[in-house]
Amino acid sequence: MVKAGIYGASGYTGQELLRILLRHPDVEVAAVTSRRFKGLPVSDVYPCFEGLTEKKFMDSSPDEVASVCDVIFSALPHGVAMDFVPQLLKSGKKVIDLSADFRLRELSVYEKCYRSHSSPQLLEEAVYGIPELYREKIKSAQLIANPGCYPTSIILGLAPLLKSGLADTSSIIADSKSGVSGAGREPKIGSLFCEVDEGFKAYGVLVHRHTPEIEQELSFLAGTGMKITFVPHLLPVNRGILSTIYAGMKKDTSASELLDIYNDFYKNEAFVKVLKSGFYPNISSVKGTNNCQIGIAADPDMKRIVIVSAIDNLVKGAAGQAVQNMNLMLGLEEGAGLKNIALFP
Amino acid sequence: MVKAGIYGASGYTGQELLRILLRHPDVEVAAVTSRRFKGLPVSDVYPCFEGLTEKKFMDSSPDEVASVCDVIFSALPHGVAMDFVPQLLKSGKKVIDLSADFRLRELSVYEKCYRSHSSPQLLEEAVYGIPELYREKIKSAQLIANPGCYPTSIILGLAPLLKSGLADTSSIIADSKSGVSGAGREPKIGSLFCEVDEGFKAYGVLVHRHTPEIEQELSFLAGTGMKITFVPHLLPVNRGILSTIYAGMKKDTSASELLDIYNDFYKNEAFVKVLKSGFYPNISSVKGTNNCQIGIAADPDMKRIVIVSAIDNLVKGAAGQAVQNMNLMLGLEEGAGLKNIALFP
Amino acid sequence: MVKAGIYGASGYTGQELLRILLRHPDVEVAAVTSRRFKGLPVSDVYPCFEGLTEKKFMDSSPDEVASVCDVIFSALPHGVAMDFVPQLLKSGKKVIDLSADFRLRELSVYEKCYRSHSSPQLLEEAVYGIPELYREKIKSAQLIANPGCYPTSIILGLAPLLKSGLADTSSIIADSKSGVSGAGREPKIGSLFCEVDEGFKAYGVLVHRHTPEIEQELSFLAGTGMKITFVPHLLPVNRGILSTIYAGMKKDTSASELLDIYNDFYKNEAFVKVLKSGFYPNISSVKGTNNCQIGIAADPDMKRIVIVSAIDNLVKGAAGQAVQNMNLMLGLEEGAGLKNIALFP
Amino acid sequence: MVKAGIYGASGYTGQELLRILLRHPDVEVAAVTSRRFKGLPVSDVYPCFEGLTEKKFMDSSPDEVASVCDVIFSALPHGVAMDFVPQLLKSGKKVIDLSADFRLRELSVYEKCYRSHSSPQLLEEAVYGIPELYREKIKSAQLIANPGCYPTSIILGLAPLLKSGLADTSSIIADSKSGVSGAGREPKIGSLFCEVDEGFKAYGVLVHRHTPEIEQELSFLAGTGMKITFVPHLLPVNRGILSTIYAGMKKDTSASELLDIYNDFYKNEAFVKVLKSGFYPNISSVKGTNNCQIGIAADPDMKRIVIVSAIDNLVKGAAGQAVQNMNLMLGLEEGAGLKNIALFP
Repeated sequence: MVKAGIYGASGYTGQELLRILLRHPDVEVAAVTSRRFKGLPVSDVYPCFEGLTEKKFMDSSPDEVASVCDVIFSALPHGVAMDFVPQLLKSGKKVIDLSADFRLRELSVYEKCYRSHSSPQLLEEAVYGIPELYREKIKSAQLIANPGCYPTSIILGLAPLLKSGLADTSSIIADSKSGVSGAGREPKIGSLFCEVDEGFKAYGVLVHRHTPEIEQELSFLAGTGMKITFVPHLLPVNRGILSTIYAGMKKDTSASELLDIYNDFYKNEAFVKVLKSGFYPNISSVKGTNNCQIGIAADPDMKRIVIVSAIDNLVKGAAGQAVQNMNLMLGLEEGAGLKNIALFP
Repeated sequence: MVKAGIYGASGYTGQELLRILLRHPDVEVAAVTSRRFKGLPVSDVYPCFEGLTEKKFMDSSPDEVASVCDVIFSALPHGVAMDFVPQLLKSGKKVIDLSADFRLRELSVYEKCYRSHSSPQLLEEAVYGIPELYREKIKSAQLIANPGCYPTSIILGLAPLLKSGLADTSSIIADSKSGVSGAGREPKIGSLFCEVDEGFKAYGVLVHRHTPEIEQELSFLAGTGMKITFVPHLLPVNRGILSTIYAGMKKDTSASELLDIYNDFYKNEAFVKVLKSGFYPNISSVKGTNNCQIGIAADPDMKRIVIVSAIDNLVKGAAGQAVQNMNLMLGLEEGAGLKNIALFP
Repeated sequence: MVKAGIYGASGYTGQELLRILLRHPDVEVAAVTSRRFKGLPVSDVYPCFEGLTEKKFMDSSPDEVASVCDVIFSALPHGVAMDFVPQLLKSGKKVIDLSADFRLRELSVYEKCYRSHSSPQLLEEAVYGIPELYREKIKSAQLIANPGCYPTSIILGLAPLLKSGLADTSSIIADSKSGVSGAGREPKIGSLFCEVDEGFKAYGVLVHRHTPEIEQELSFLAGTGMKITFVPHLLPVNRGILSTIYAGMKKDTSASELLDIYNDFYKNEAFVKVLKSGFYPNISSVKGTNNCQIGIAADPDMKRIVIVSAIDNLVKGAAGQAVQNMNLMLGLEEGAGLKNIALFP
Repeated sequence: MVKAGIYGASGYTGQELLRILLRHPDVEVAAVTSRRFKGLPVSDVYPCFEGLTEKKFMDSSPDEVASVCDVIFSALPHGVAMDFVPQLLKSGKKVIDLSADFRLRELSVYEKCYRSHSSPQLLEEAVYGIPELYREKIKSAQLIANPGCYPTSIILGLAPLLKSGLADTSSIIADSKSGVSGAGREPKIGSLFCEVDEGFKAYGVLVHRHTPEIEQELSFLAGTGMKITFVPHLLPVNRGILSTIYAGMKKDTSASELLDIYNDFYKNEAFVKVLKSGFYPNISSVKGTNNCQIGIAADPDMKRIVIVSAIDNLVKGAAGQAVQNMNLMLGLEEGAGLKNIALFP
């Protein structure tokens, strides 16, 4: 059995990792840490674990955690992870970091969006953890920069199109909508039930910090530097991201040609489902799963393509993709622990 | 006191009209009809009216209703209204029709999207009821084609921009999100609580019937025939439409120039609020009101403009705008009966 | 025009008072205070007020507010109001306090549930502000202790029954369910969207601080000291309280006898609606209104009565009832400013 | 591998069975039937199954289904199941019926609540499928009457108390709250999103059809005929039932004595979790699982006990308990396929 640890486990992503790992056939959870809740049973902080685990949150040092684990997930916030990840790596153990700290190749871009970086030497080493694009590099990585939730939904939605060369790369717009768990469990007015329920709004319009991460990866796919227009919105649901992506056509292309391209691109992927013509995803169909569903439309008159992509922000957008990465890094079956079907309704 | 009737009053729009008209200072509700619920007190069908009105649904003929009313709102479905509106008009009374039956100038466009039309002679006479654009024509109209909810949100969001000539008219994308009340009160699986709650999806992608209505009005504003890419989505909320609209710039334009243009265009409008720079609307801020809130961003690098527009689909998108039209037609104060503040939270 | 002030206006109850008072036909809002948001336009803190008021939050002293107002609403928290209310009263102005600080007749009971009291001399003077029970005293009061939301729903639900002497006063159980706005706008984990949405729980089981307030008023009604079993629950909705109340019968009583008693008791009350046999209220029917709806069932075999009572916690349970009290205190029409119909859906 | 069939699989309970069985380690799904959707892939009707199963709904006869299955789940409606279950049994295969048709021991009680019964001879044979109470009989049963959702929550909540003899059996009140999936997938106005969202109501007050089923089982537990007061309510959530149960004490009993009794009663049960003193369940903690969480309070002054019990109505209240019964009937591990942790948030 693989021994796994979760460093900074008391947020929504941390407990999601725990939920997946406790039911993973090849993993034993060796440590879960939280400074705020140290000493408390996980089930006191998240009552859904009542009777299902005896684990308690510990306030252990990176060294202590690394010493008892084969792989460590860091679910610390941006700007904090950069200080702990080097210590976790020191021991030679594999690390999957769910913060933004190691996702950007360019130090200057990171420092402009976030803050000064204490471990820039790791930026080059870290592998951006989208298995559908970087599977081989992930297998041999020691440090994974696990992608952001918005980026995952947009990159998976656009990868086949950008690779095909059929899109006008200056024309891309991503109109994304996310559930509230993306904002984390910190108590703030904007995340209160009464502020979100029965509401819907755009936020971070044209200035969201995920934009450079998205642009970096889309540029790799397109083989040329490119920028996008990205507008995120806040949905009154717990989980899920749906991105509606608009692209101009370079030349006349039909929906069925696009479906062929997408089906071919993802034909060996267990977690990406391309829907048949006329069908579009609903976030309720991927809730709680590591699946991404994609629907495609084309308007030859307007020379425009519409791609709709849905994931669960906490699973394929965070903890699930992290476990998929772990499986690859450790030579386990890629889908192990990630086969549940979305709970509906 | 003006005597008003509501023909086909048992749907969500019909009861919303009743809610507004019962508290309108210059109106007395003379008749509310429903074939399905005839004889029942309104408060049995909508318990929020309990103790607040003694009105019952009647199954009266158009003639009977017209004979006791100065103005009649038709809240019948598309394809049904066309048969009743001519009878209501015959009496010389003013009619505000909330269906799509008289909104399209071109008979062929209507018949392609909906069905064959039984009263095409009225298409030319009907005035499209957006007061912010057609106030003078509305004042003297006998028949108002009350706009659709998606079209209202998009047309109000784009009118100043298209009039300014600063937008590339071939570039417009409207990514709209609507609450469930837009689907009406007919029992169907897709509108069930369990199908919608915790979900979010696109539907009618590139094929929604509101598209020609939107394109007709945008073309008038732009002074040239134009098409758009329109993708509606279903939000798990009762009320509200938020449209995120993307437009290419013809030349470099800043957000502050755009704000000036919008503020100037709407400076005398009581129901359209242009938000200051960096602020974007939330549908919870307009819920239950006739207000439209608009936020604007610009990205000179990408030469792209983002406009976010929010209304309540049942009020500014239907019943409230209908009452605003009635006020104009009858020489009442334009805002009478429409001054409530959004209930929050 | 009456000049009204709201002291501590930035919480949900404070902004609800503002919403009502801005549309009250006989009132001008002279001051709204908030220490936290001083200097900010109300519409920056609550965007639903955008374009509808120019008011800003001020950080004024009680004296300053009292000097420009005829009546002051205090929406300060429990334990804070007790320090400010005496200063507001000093000026001779009328004060309506929405905290718990002046609701309990017995100082010792207050101090056991809350904290030591800095102004116990006012406990006797304060009038408990349920107009349906204490209308005449309210008219001449200088200080109103505005009732709690749970107490209002339970007291209105039980008043006719207790007055009738038909209930076993040792048998009363109130199973109450409240929307989240009852918890206020303070950011805390338990009020986050993700903690509440799709959930439902009991809390404060048998130990909620509203219990003594409820028991005090029920004892007055019953003419004898009595206790109840009170269990509150948290509903995933913004607004509304529904209390399902169980009482043992002293002797055989039918639902229709009970309906007669309730209809008679409330026959002159504009804001209490007793539903006909077989009908029970839904909180969505009273949302945003000052109305209370009551449904009644009886089971003679089990000798048990069931009463279901619904209010909006922020209106009849707080701000609306406060305005009703103000209307009475100032000789205005009791229902002025409180006649809207619940927004549905 | 056990071959299982689902007869009448297109409702919410049917698809929940399919979700569980497709991931059950010892089961192969051999047939899923639906008259309405015959020929359609399950994933067209429930898109959460997209890419996860190739199953199609068939319109097969009971004989055809029985011939390819070892065990058949009937998820047909009340009144329909009674006609099909005898045909399914004929083949000698085991049947688990999720309707109410075989739950009541007394034919006359069934016929009063539902309709005339076409297969009364099976009432005696059928075993009421609560494993925590009837495990041994279930192991050897050929026909299981799978319990209702409300009854499961109330029976599990009361079993230890009634067995202990400490409760006044004439005093029991169950105030239950259910999510909307309990109403099924039939399109009806009362289940529409807009009718339920932001609302909460009691329904079926004192007349709900689950009452006799509850009373039958409680009487067995108490060893004496007993009746209860049962009031169900509709919660604006997809899943979950929380029952708040009130009982009078026969003699002074503390919460800790009760906790001991409950912990002892359920000490070997994997799916019932008794919470520690002062903790009460939230339906979000059991959502999507076969778990029941129970919290207990006592008020010696009022001589009253409060028990709060939470389950997922579609799992422990239907499909999950059915699979638990199947596991017992077929000698599989009782918890096989039922070990997931509640998705939160």
